[in-house]
Amino acid sequence: MPKDGSVIGVMSSVELQLPPQIGSWDRGDARAARRAIRSGAYAGYTAGIAGGYVQANVCILPRAYAEVFLLYCQRNPKPCPLLARSDPGDARLPALAEDLDIRTDIARYHVFRDGELVQELSDISSIWSDDLITFALGCSFSFEEALQQAGLRLRFLERGNVAGVYVTDIATVPAGPFQGPLVVTMRAFKPADAIRAVQVTSRFPNVHGAPVHIGNPGQIGVDLSKRYHNVGDSEVADDELPVFWACGLTPQLAVKNARPPLCITHAPSYMLITDVRNAALAVL
Amino acid sequence: MPKDGSVIGVMSSVELQLPPQIGSWDRGDARAARRAIRSGAYAGYTAGIAGGYVQANVCILPRAYAEVFLLYCQRNPKPCPLLARSDPGDARLPALAEDLDIRTDIARYHVFRDGELVQELSDISSIWSDDLITFALGCSFSFEEALQQAGLRLRFLERGNVAGVYVTDIATVPAGPFQGPLVVTMRAFKPADAIRAVQVTSRFPNVHGAPVHIGNPGQIGVDLSKRYHNVGDSEVADDELPVFWACGLTPQLAVKNARPPLCITHAPSYMLITDVRNAALAVL
Repeated sequence: MPKDGSVIGVMSSVELQLPPQIGSWDRGDARAARRAIRSGAYAGYTAGIAGGYVQANVCILPRAYAEVFLLYCQRNPKPCPLLARSDPGDARLPALAEDLDIRTDIARYHVFRDGELVQELSDISSIWSDDLITFALGCSFSFEEALQQAGLRLRFLERGNVAGVYVTDIATVPAGPFQGPLVVTMRAFKPADAIRAVQVTSRFPNVHGAPVHIGNPGQIGVDLSKRYHNVGDSEVADDELPVFWACGLTPQLAVKNARPPLCITHAPSYMLITDVRNAALAVL
Repeated sequence: MPKDGSVIGVMSSVELQLPPQIGSWDRGDARAARRAIRSGAYAGYTAGIAGGYVQANVCILPRAYAEVFLLYCQRNPKPCPLLARSDPGDARLPALAEDLDIRTDIARYHVFRDGELVQELSDISSIWSDDLITFALGCSFSFEEALQQAGLRLRFLERGNVAGVYVTDIATVPAGPFQGPLVVTMRAFKPADAIRAVQVTSRFPNVHGAPVHIGNPGQIGVDLSKRYHNVGDSEVADDELPVFWACGLTPQLAVKNARPPLCITHAPSYMLITDVRNAALAVL
């Protein structure tokens, strides 16, 4: 049963959050999770759902913008690690999951017009067109799983939070109208663990890969107390180093700057769940 | 023509340095370098000689100490990456070079009695015995070559210096009488280069591998102004992080603490040149 595609609300902020509706489906099963989201049976955050499977950032653009956005991704692979691009008008992404339908398989979409967030939807069938192209980009959830499997502690997860998000003063490489600063996530580690984190995440270039910076936040224009939209955890203990990774919000800022007539993304933390295993992304 | 094995001097310090005698041999050829050292035609530092080939730290011990020293290496693989161990009394190390004779193929040896440096020799044939076992350990020259090939700048090399050497407050894992602090080398990098340096050196576990620490020296008991025997370069620019690797002087300190009746090592910077290519040590 498809979702009704009704407007959740015209947004004044991105803070709105529906209560998750947990049904009797297997939360460890990626296909079951997509089916639950598709039917409306589940509408919550995707963190912790279908563990072991890649979750993706999604950006849907009109064809006229998609070509140059692909170039932007190519020029900025660390913040924009492209996992899949659809054909125009094709709602499938078979490289990520056979049954995937991008119009229904995300619990919450953000709709941007001319670069401004105007709408949240639970289904985009009503605004889908043959002109739209989907981009699925890697997400740090994948490498966070690898970090934990390597025995590294992510205290922000234990606090039910996500990694702190910061806008740097490092410019990405522009492509046409797409341009803007590099956005990063910060995770704090003791030095030996920071070294281990470099090793572990280096194996995952398709999900942001190795850190882009370590140590002094000011060197990349970051003040740890000033998070992007107050998102995430900024705590760094005295014996820890802040370690910074490129973040999938970078292309969202670039799209905002490009002001395409239409852009559809997932809402933050409502990711696209795929059938690709995180471990399958490891290059070594 | 073998060297005469004469005593270069009874040491009051390790600062003594013979002028190198450059002959008409190919400085890029490892076997030619060993032959020049063996004959006394070359008696200088080995840095820059036989580029691309592994140079090794050497520690020669009586059999009664060698067994537990092997255990010490096994327990402390980062500072003591064992490349080869000879059979008792066997002066060869065929895993490192077919023609290698450990009694003659190092330009300058240090002889320790009961843990004290008592003699420098250019040939140890006169004190060799069937009771001695040779250990060859990896050296950071190998990963420094890899760092440079990756485009990272090692400014201390440009200044004709070596990496700064420091004694940490981290204890190694003891084995019998072998115990002591971890000794490290420090190289300064801008943060992005420090991350790259972690990646590059991670490929070389047999030559100390990834760094053991990054950032605040005080966390490992190091004061950058206080180098071990004033060895090496301590400069860290404002936009750089100090990055610390385990150092082959760690086992020398442990041997000093163990006070074996006899121990023979290479003199610092007079390494054993092997036929093994640095690139062959890369695990990936």
